Amino acid sequence: MQETILSYSDLFRFTQSVFENIGCPTGDAVLATTVLLSADVRGIDSHGVARLTGYVRLYEAGRINPTPNVRIIHETLSTATVDGDKGLGLVVAPKAMQIAIDKAKLAGTGWVSVKNSNHYGIAGYHAMMALQQDMIGISMTNASALVAPTFSTERMLGTNPICVAIPAGEQPPFVADMATTTAANGKLEILQRKGGEAPLGWVQDKVGQATPDAHALKTGGALLPLGSDRDHGSHKGYALGSIVDIFSAVLSGASYGPWAPPFPAYVPMPQNMPGEGLGHFFGAMRVDAFRPAEEFKQHMDNWINRFRNATPADPAQPVLIPGDPEREMAAIRMQTGIPLHEAVVADLKALSDKLKIEFNY
Amino acid sequence: MQETILSYSDLFRFTQSVFENIGCPTGDAVLATTVLLSADVRGIDSHGVARLTGYVRLYEAGRINPTPNVRIIHETLSTATVDGDKGLGLVVAPKAMQIAIDKAKLAGTGWVSVKNSNHYGIAGYHAMMALQQDMIGISMTNASALVAPTFSTERMLGTNPICVAIPAGEQPPFVADMATTTAANGKLEILQRKGGEAPLGWVQDKVGQATPDAHALKTGGALLPLGSDRDHGSHKGYALGSIVDIFSAVLSGASYGPWAPPFPAYVPMPQNMPGEGLGHFFGAMRVDAFRPAEEFKQHMDNWINRFRNATPADPAQPVLIPGDPEREMAAIRMQTGIPLHEAVVADLKALSDKLKIEFNY
Repeated sequence: MQETILSYSDLFRFTQSVFENIGCPTGDAVLATTVLLSADVRGIDSHGVARLTGYVRLYEAGRINPTPNVRIIHETLSTATVDGDKGLGLVVAPKAMQIAIDKAKLAGTGWVSVKNSNHYGIAGYHAMMALQQDMIGISMTNASALVAPTFSTERMLGTNPICVAIPAGEQPPFVADMATTTAANGKLEILQRKGGEAPLGWVQDKVGQATPDAHALKTGGALLPLGSDRDHGSHKGYALGSIVDIFSAVLSGASYGPWAPPFPAYVPMPQNMPGEGLGHFFGAMRVDAFRPAEEFKQHMDNWINRFRNATPADPAQPVLIPGDPEREMAAIRMQTGIPLHEAVVADLKALSDKLKIEFNY
Repeated sequence: MQETILSYSDLFRFTQSVFENIGCPTGDAVLATTVLLSADVRGIDSHGVARLTGYVRLYEAGRINPTPNVRIIHETLSTATVDGDKGLGLVVAPKAMQIAIDKAKLAGTGWVSVKNSNHYGIAGYHAMMALQQDMIGISMTNASALVAPTFSTERMLGTNPICVAIPAGEQPPFVADMATTTAANGKLEILQRKGGEAPLGWVQDKVGQATPDAHALKTGGALLPLGSDRDHGSHKGYALGSIVDIFSAVLSGASYGPWAPPFPAYVPMPQNMPGEGLGHFFGAMRVDAFRPAEEFKQHMDNWINRFRNATPADPAQPVLIPGDPEREMAAIRMQTGIPLHEAVVADLKALSDKLKIEFNY
């Protein structure tokens, strides 16, 4: 695989210019770029600049409003429903998360359900916004249907991720950011490019049989919920993905289940959509709404230390705390740059030519 | 397997008398019995009267206070921290969930973290309390350590269940009630009694190898997090179990991780416990804090209908909605009675003799 390494700042400049080019005000372009690149920095390559042309195509298809009026349409002391006004999810989501944080300052917790949005980057960025405020952050989103429920051959749910970010004291925060499927779609895409076989339990074929074929989704197959099969708890992964779908879309008035709008602009929109756009759900809980923040953080340090020192099966592979791999990757990539797959570089080059934006690679 | 069938009312009378016998006021004894038997009724036999003697032993060991002062020790508009005062979890939990519901009435949502409690029966009972109020209910609890994190051989977490209950309109509610492990411990206990082998991925042996030995926990093994192994996402199950542990115990001031107090009274308490008792976490969200309740419920009906009609892999096994199997079981058992395993009957008979409480079976 051919890779090109770009610095964070070069990639930032280019990406910001692209968002400005499609009409985003500078503040929003900076925000969208920060959110998008947080994926590349943390090593979640499928959700970063690899998707930049996808966002531009959605804009060209009239599905993204570059100057949205992101507004609260319903609220209580601790909740709000937000209309994203077809804005970039990369902009709508952090604004909605900020509303959750502001609610939590007054009411102890804040909970925001969002409709009329689209792909919001990595769940982790938004949840982690709460950490600087000594709050626990929660973020989830529905997504285009790729996942079959237990006992089904039909794609009914997205990979519907959940992130929970919990502050600690001396220790880095606990950040669990995960698709509710056995494997994220990005991992399958890597196997597709490499021509490798998927472990059994990641995907099924069109009749519902487990298959190692990484391309099974192109022939009527589906991703499998966390748990893989009924014996191993796939009904739990299906339930988790469903909860994300309902909190994000049924609570807010977005489109849910198989009606969630697809990310690729060339895929036709589903018929008879029951809501508007994609949905997200955010939560912020002040830790001092439960016990003094310093006390909580000391116990989180103790929790993290204890788990990090749990007896390993193999001394060469110690037990990890959720968020460890992404944080370590971020430290490396901010220093040495972000490696981009040749297909991504070609995509960005084409974008550069089309939009007449300089791209130094 | 020899089974005895008891009516709900006979079992209720006996169980209530047992709780009264250990000193619970009548109201609390009725509440504890209602919660405990909701497990038997819904077919979660491991969490019902099978545990009654276990609770009595905890009382005899001085670990349960039959007349607790369950009280709020910290609160904001949308949150409370509750001290269970060593009460029965079966009593402390519904009282704490009621506080979450009352908070939600005023603030839109209510969130309660509980310390100084113990085993609270099925997570589902408490979450489902929210349904009658047109609220979404959330319930979770930590538990004695039986589960090894990914890459570890050490038991660090309980089976730490999560329940999310969501009201619908014409349709029955969506109720996902699940351990964050591949298989609940109760399923393993059934295999132990039958002498069957466990599917690979449920348990590991003392060196961290997957094993079909249903008795592996007795020889230093551990239950596995949902996902079974790293390739199939066990780090996600480990993260989910950890979130439950932190919300239930680190937020409240209960004992967490490997320090969670064991349910069997004969198991010595861990050394240097960092908190008091077991912890729970409850949430209640008014659906009309996000959109009009009737509108939400119509869309939930649509969601449920659509998923129920997702194309099945096998026409003989339609797609289920979380909560379907338990609700169907409850309808049957309320009518025809509750079948008890002979070991459970022997336990209850012994309790009847010891406490001089009539037991008609």
